[in-house]
Amino acid sequence: MAKKLGRSTFLLEKHPAILASAAIGGKMEGEGPQGAYFDTISNDAQFGEDSWEKAEGRLQQLALQTAMQKAGVSAAEVDCLFAGDLLNQCVGSSYGLQQFEIPFVGLYGACSTMAESLMMAALFVEGGLAKRAAAVTSSHFCSAERQFRFPLEYGGQRPPSAQWTATAAGAAIVGCGQGVSVNAVTVGTIRDLGITDANNMGAAMAPAAASTLTTFFNDSVTHPADYDLILTGDLGQVGRDLLFELLEKEGVRISDRYHDCGLLIYDRDKQDVHAGGSGCGCSASVLCGSILRQMAEGRWKNVLFMATGALMSPTMVQQGEAIPGIAHLLHLKA
Amino acid sequence: MAKKLGRSTFLLEKHPAILASAAIGGKMEGEGPQGAYFDTISNDAQFGEDSWEKAEGRLQQLALQTAMQKAGVSAAEVDCLFAGDLLNQCVGSSYGLQQFEIPFVGLYGACSTMAESLMMAALFVEGGLAKRAAAVTSSHFCSAERQFRFPLEYGGQRPPSAQWTATAAGAAIVGCGQGVSVNAVTVGTIRDLGITDANNMGAAMAPAAASTLTTFFNDSVTHPADYDLILTGDLGQVGRDLLFELLEKEGVRISDRYHDCGLLIYDRDKQDVHAGGSGCGCSASVLCGSILRQMAEGRWKNVLFMATGALMSPTMVQQGEAIPGIAHLLHLKA
Repeated sequence: MAKKLGRSTFLLEKHPAILASAAIGGKMEGEGPQGAYFDTISNDAQFGEDSWEKAEGRLQQLALQTAMQKAGVSAAEVDCLFAGDLLNQCVGSSYGLQQFEIPFVGLYGACSTMAESLMMAALFVEGGLAKRAAAVTSSHFCSAERQFRFPLEYGGQRPPSAQWTATAAGAAIVGCGQGVSVNAVTVGTIRDLGITDANNMGAAMAPAAASTLTTFFNDSVTHPADYDLILTGDLGQVGRDLLFELLEKEGVRISDRYHDCGLLIYDRDKQDVHAGGSGCGCSASVLCGSILRQMAEGRWKNVLFMATGALMSPTMVQQGEAIPGIAHLLHLKA
Repeated sequence: MAKKLGRSTFLLEKHPAILASAAIGGKMEGEGPQGAYFDTISNDAQFGEDSWEKAEGRLQQLALQTAMQKAGVSAAEVDCLFAGDLLNQCVGSSYGLQQFEIPFVGLYGACSTMAESLMMAALFVEGGLAKRAAAVTSSHFCSAERQFRFPLEYGGQRPPSAQWTATAAGAAIVGCGQGVSVNAVTVGTIRDLGITDANNMGAAMAPAAASTLTTFFNDSVTHPADYDLILTGDLGQVGRDLLFELLEKEGVRISDRYHDCGLLIYDRDKQDVHAGGSGCGCSASVLCGSILRQMAEGRWKNVLFMATGALMSPTMVQQGEAIPGIAHLLHLKA
């Protein structure tokens, strides 16, 4: 059974394993530095569907289907599915995944969803509640832009702090067996430092990232040096700089072992993504694609994966409210 | 540790208890048959706030605050918070509950959220992951109507199958101790029978309710006669009739011990709510208000509480897609 360290950090003593994972991406993601790690890249942004929303559902469907194939399990052998996405009412998940008929726990954690879902899947396996559980999430540039900012046809100009919502999905199957193990998790707390700019998600998420990371270090009595990679979800350039600044105040330095999925997914010199990538699918596809594969190959042994979410609502932003953020953390061990 | 019965039903052997609960309602809910059971009724539909969305956040805040007071615990003594609501990006929860600074797992289950959050809170306490966990949800007529259907100012006509979104919230604190216990839970599966009418949520949810209920009876090897109350979330008149019809085909009869929160919350003879109440706050406030109190008073001993959610997205409905439903179940014992 999981051992509680502090209020919200859990040491998973059975070390549930990520039995298999899959990453699906769009054309632009395939052309970026992560291109080689996607299981499937579609040059058709609609993924054969007739709407952006259904395309996003298809992304999740492909991700889960591929991860189950790689794990050698059928949908009937997965006991519980944790999923969510950025779309209103999380329709990427509900429409994309309903065909599998797996008992479903819908989550909303914005871009933190890969960490939130993987954390819940690991806790369910650890607690004997599921023999196998799946974690799935996605994002799609076109469905996200029209919902959160402006429809693409409007041609709105993007400021330098803006991030590019990845058209991508990731899925992981957790169970007992061979694979990268989930050693510990920390449930995040909502943080809000007053950012009101819907084009500056990185800054809205950095305080939550700093809070969850210091909570984990305190609870587990460990230090950055105990890990060979500390990976955030999608803080991008602006959020990364702010995270370093916030951690510096606490005397925590992570820059020599730090990466951000939002900065890994695109080549910012060649791809016009401004401050980096974002969206649930960004950290999901980078984790489920390259990172887990590199861990299996021995490149990384101890990884802290912390996906961050800006709980951003266009309605609240229009009302002048600040954007709260959240970050959940997993300690993964090869 | 929870004992697994079948794929998605869990017998909670430590019997986590609902230590306290609270229900908050608006003026119309206060005038209905549940009026006496609300902890607070506000005649101001904006709850002192300057937007409907913030009013809904305030509803959740009041519900959690009151439940914690009744349980005699502070926010720092609650280890984990499970919450969500109907608003895009679940802003009722994120804006309403962030001040408590409790580790937060955001959920999206539409009107099934009271059951989803309570189920997760109970599983966390059962598994030793939380000493105390809270489950919170809400809905607000005005924020829901303008988001899902038409802004109130439009004056759109409501068909007879339409339900009235309750302005209400419920919160429960789960832990080890005295109180109604959570004896078993069943995680629901998404079901979709092809309902495309956004004004007929009851019909969209009934298939999921039938599926979860029969799954629970099969997994637990029990029958309707083993329970003195089977309570659905907010099927309303149309959904209730359809549920009976679907269960009849499986040879299951529940009508002699059945209630629906959507039919309990308003007096349909005097209050113009058409097919009944709905919204996350409907089943949340009926459960956290009258039902749990009546269980403590000995009126009901064995209750099946099954909140149902229509995972309805205006975007998908406009695209002609059907509305999927989900239902999660808890067996509560006095």
